[in-house]
Amino acid sequence: MKPTPVKGTRDYLPKEVQIRDYMQNIILETYKDAGFERITTPIMEDAVNLDKSDGGENLNLVFRILKRGQKLSSVLSRGDILEKELSDIGLRYDLTLPLSRYYANNRNNLMSPFKVIQMDRVYRAENPQKGRLREFTQCDIDIIGNASCDAEIELILTTAKALDKTGIKNYKVKINDRRILKSIFEYSGFKEEDYEKLSIIFDKLDKIGIEGIKEELADGNFNTGASEKFISIFESGGLSLASVKNICSEEFVQNIQKIMDTITTVTNGTVVTEFAPSLVRGQGYYTGTIFEVEAEGYSGAVAGGGRYDNLIGKFLNEDIPAVGFSIGFERIFEILMENNLEVPGQKKLIAVFYDSENYAAALSYAEELRKDYKVSVIARPKKFGKFLNKLEQQGFSGFAVYGQEDGVKLFS
Amino acid sequence: MKPTPVKGTRDYLPKEVQIRDYMQNIILETYKDAGFERITTPIMEDAVNLDKSDGGENLNLVFRILKRGQKLSSVLSRGDILEKELSDIGLRYDLTLPLSRYYANNRNNLMSPFKVIQMDRVYRAENPQKGRLREFTQCDIDIIGNASCDAEIELILTTAKALDKTGIKNYKVKINDRRILKSIFEYSGFKEEDYEKLSIIFDKLDKIGIEGIKEELADGNFNTGASEKFISIFESGGLSLASVKNICSEEFVQNIQKIMDTITTVTNGTVVTEFAPSLVRGQGYYTGTIFEVEAEGYSGAVAGGGRYDNLIGKFLNEDIPAVGFSIGFERIFEILMENNLEVPGQKKLIAVFYDSENYAAALSYAEELRKDYKVSVIARPKKFGKFLNKLEQQGFSGFAVYGQEDGVKLFS
Repeated sequence: MKPTPVKGTRDYLPKEVQIRDYMQNIILETYKDAGFERITTPIMEDAVNLDKSDGGENLNLVFRILKRGQKLSSVLSRGDILEKELSDIGLRYDLTLPLSRYYANNRNNLMSPFKVIQMDRVYRAENPQKGRLREFTQCDIDIIGNASCDAEIELILTTAKALDKTGIKNYKVKINDRRILKSIFEYSGFKEEDYEKLSIIFDKLDKIGIEGIKEELADGNFNTGASEKFISIFESGGLSLASVKNICSEEFVQNIQKIMDTITTVTNGTVVTEFAPSLVRGQGYYTGTIFEVEAEGYSGAVAGGGRYDNLIGKFLNEDIPAVGFSIGFERIFEILMENNLEVPGQKKLIAVFYDSENYAAALSYAEELRKDYKVSVIARPKKFGKFLNKLEQQGFSGFAVYGQEDGVKLFS
Repeated sequence: MKPTPVKGTRDYLPKEVQIRDYMQNIILETYKDAGFERITTPIMEDAVNLDKSDGGENLNLVFRILKRGQKLSSVLSRGDILEKELSDIGLRYDLTLPLSRYYANNRNNLMSPFKVIQMDRVYRAENPQKGRLREFTQCDIDIIGNASCDAEIELILTTAKALDKTGIKNYKVKINDRRILKSIFEYSGFKEEDYEKLSIIFDKLDKIGIEGIKEELADGNFNTGASEKFISIFESGGLSLASVKNICSEEFVQNIQKIMDTITTVTNGTVVTEFAPSLVRGQGYYTGTIFEVEAEGYSGAVAGGGRYDNLIGKFLNEDIPAVGFSIGFERIFEILMENNLEVPGQKKLIAVFYDSENYAAALSYAEELRKDYKVSVIARPKKFGKFLNKLEQQGFSGFAVYGQEDGVKLFS
């Protein structure tokens, strides 16, 4: 049997779990203080829901669960089996699709607007690289039933507050709107069927610069006039919020401006926002505002989200406005480990040693000490000194020996 | 798209999650006070580990994950496909197998004896009946590296303390030993290959009584003399711990006696234990003591566990003694819901209403109130009175309107 965990997944040591639990709890409390309520959903979803969810690239990364019993044998007994026939359920790739289903299933029992927390694991069959886990935790807040950009403002403010508490410094919130992105492509004169490919190229602007974009556009099979017009927008001073006013509907611009202004006002400018016209976000289900948090010194996003006004409608006969913001907890955890976070304010863990004839009495003694300590009762080991070193290494703060009157001795 | 969750799984409403989180936290703190440390493992395990794990009936209930990409297509391109070839990973059916793998993988970084907490979800493709979920949570403690029955005593005492805190009353801990079970079959003269079938029949003693056992033995194809000898053991006054002394090794009896006596001493008899010779527990990996908690008024076990001294050895070249006790959290949750548990000591949740021109100011006002309340900021609704009723229904404790000087009004 294989002692290592499944490829792309991780075992967490006690010390690591302590840090993870501590920080997840801080994030949870921050969200609750802002009036959000936690729900949970199963990690499995019906395959039909996943397949129709507009999850973009993530749909290629779904772990699918094999059918069972009669359902499976009837598939296997046929020739020419299609992959899709073998599976009826998959593991969720994010928390947004399950939430949309959940809202459709439970809306009569929920507040409206529904302000909701999810902190849970999701699954993607990524090619495991540094930091690309196949099982990872997301901390999401969503507001369902509010079409105004007040919802975006609240999500950004609350997420920023949670990030502040994790100790992450020098981050900024990049904001865009899927509708602005589309308007820029339209204005340049690209064909609509190219928008997705163009988005993928444009998304790389920060990495490859305007010259890189130029090359990729030339390599792709796009209309040359459109490519030139597109590039010229940048060369005439870049894409500021003011400059896109002439390209897209003024409403989209005002929307982003209001979000940025309100956040500056409420936080006295401590939360930095930035219009980021090349921000794309992968998921196909986004319909309006999209945002992402970038932290100095770390590549990739710490958090991301956006508005998805049509997704819940796929479960109901009615579109329901919705917007969400998700913290990638694994990235936060990585940063906490690099910074050697110490979990504060815990009862100290000590050992109480006993000899076997005194076990019952030692248990009662340990119980008394539990008012002040976490106490592990351990048979007195033969190599006592060596064992004490091990205790200290393992994060114990001290020990007592049952029957010796000098009580608890703390390691200095 | 389907709004209902996958068959056999559940969505949890905010009020339910509040209760679940609260009680899981109480159990977790009880375990930590007793010197146990929490770990986490992935919900997925390699199929080879699950298949070889001696999980008994549970092995027929494993959710298997379909292979992906090239690995899958190479299977599909052949004729005559076997089910096993389609899957390389499965969802864990309990927390004991992942823990055994975890210990083998990480032992150099762990305390010895290792006292460990797991509180997490497991998966079984059961036929969904009332209370038989396909995704459910277990709260486990295990002690690895202690062969003495002190480990059993500590697990039972700590689990009982956790159960006391959940408010469950009138429960008892039933104890048996797989080796005693085997000795009784041996003594009666049954064939070794029948032991498993016999265990399944004997396990029903509480439900069907001695007459029922007689019938099932007659229906099965067992040696008649052995069946009669087996039944006669009961008819001569039942199977007490004293009476099995003549049937099995005295060591097994003394072991159970010491466990029961010590628990009675330490708890002044408040934790009730009972020798239960017909207790079986399904898993094949148990090697010695097994136990189960039964609560008055509830059928089925609230908690169960036992010693599995050979399981870790399947990952290492060395057998490591281990014993665990698992609380079935869904059963606890069911009882809490029946008893209408109110989660105590939380900040009250209120709403702050605003008109759209004052949004930024209302956000700052809400932030001040968060010293004392959880505050949800909500646009002032048109049907204000009706909305207040909804708020109260949804568990809000009161509200304030930004700009009105009378501050927070609590619902009476």
